[in-house]
Amino acid sequence: MEVAIMLYNGITALDAIGPYEVFAATMKSKVKFVAKNKGLIKLDSKMGYLHADYSFSEVTSADILVVPGCSPPNYKTPMNDEESLNWIRQLHETTKWTTSVCNGSLILGAAGLLNGAVATSHWGSFDLLQSFGAIPTDERVVRHDKIVTAAGVSSGIDMALQLVAWELGEDTSKVVQLILEYDPQPPFDTGSPKKAPAPMVEQLRGMIQELSKKEPNL
Amino acid sequence: MEVAIMLYNGITALDAIGPYEVFAATMKSKVKFVAKNKGLIKLDSKMGYLHADYSFSEVTSADILVVPGCSPPNYKTPMNDEESLNWIRQLHETTKWTTSVCNGSLILGAAGLLNGAVATSHWGSFDLLQSFGAIPTDERVVRHDKIVTAAGVSSGIDMALQLVAWELGEDTSKVVQLILEYDPQPPFDTGSPKKAPAPMVEQLRGMIQELSKKEPNL
Repeated sequence: MEVAIMLYNGITALDAIGPYEVFAATMKSKVKFVAKNKGLIKLDSKMGYLHADYSFSEVTSADILVVPGCSPPNYKTPMNDEESLNWIRQLHETTKWTTSVCNGSLILGAAGLLNGAVATSHWGSFDLLQSFGAIPTDERVVRHDKIVTAAGVSSGIDMALQLVAWELGEDTSKVVQLILEYDPQPPFDTGSPKKAPAPMVEQLRGMIQELSKKEPNL
Repeated sequence: MEVAIMLYNGITALDAIGPYEVFAATMKSKVKFVAKNKGLIKLDSKMGYLHADYSFSEVTSADILVVPGCSPPNYKTPMNDEESLNWIRQLHETTKWTTSVCNGSLILGAAGLLNGAVATSHWGSFDLLQSFGAIPTDERVVRHDKIVTAAGVSSGIDMALQLVAWELGEDTSKVVQLILEYDPQPPFDTGSPKKAPAPMVEQLRGMIQELSKKEPNL
């Protein structure tokens, strides 16, 4: 199973590494980190890097394409870059599954892939998601034909486990969950806007909206 | 809050990136990826790289030290490297919290930090953990004085949320959980040996034990 994970400056590391680790643990996947240009990829936090081993021109097909998200100040970069959007459209022609994590769905939207599609994104980006003709829904992993979108950041782990179950069978997905000891026990239960205190959600929503109006600073 | 995450060839990416993403999302942490030598760090899967921005000699103290784990065939590398173990001992003198994810606890053990300590590791590594004088327990996040060990791979996210709660307050931890939309919904419930089918656990345990006898191949 060939998996292409798209990288770009400003990316949220866990959006990419969550699904990567799930696919890697199957021991039946070839995962490729792909960017416009090979080499170091600056993280949104500006505190580190991922690394693209392949450039767009070297990866022209995949069974699964994963488009991760990024912090709001930076998300406009790939959305406004025709070369990146064209690569996504080109890969999409070849995939079994075209997927996104967090506001990576906005990039799929900018590539024109979500028109009329039920989809999700980070909970703070639903307005933007709708602006691309998508029908936002607050499920954690959303399938529309062969497009699978996941909610914020950490949801890519759940999405990848689901994709592994569909492609390699439920037992493989269960083994991977056991290998990664994915038996989550966060100290609190505030991981979605439905569960967190309303004032916390509204304050954070305001911050995200302000940040997403700013120009990228990369 | 200064966080040093130790990297080394053969590392499991999610062990490092899970905690990184939690600390980064606080917007009150300076995270440094540190290795013996700066530069690209080969992942255990051999399908990609992380990047160390700092060498051991450049980071001589930290509030929190995180020692991630690795796939069994490689874990012996830092365990048998005096320079790495000395750096861990040196940092440990300065930390508020010395922590590990997955079989990173074996590296803490090799550094002599777990003698008589209650600790955890990946569920497949409890025998080795015990060989360092630790008292294994199957809780997901285990605190012993200022040493905090977490279970396999994905547990680093839960551990970091707990550390954030202790250091920066419960509200900050809750906000981070909401930012990362950490509301896990895996398709199955097989994330611990207690929950997975017994034959699956035993088969995987055998594989891990075989792999951990092999020499690292880096």
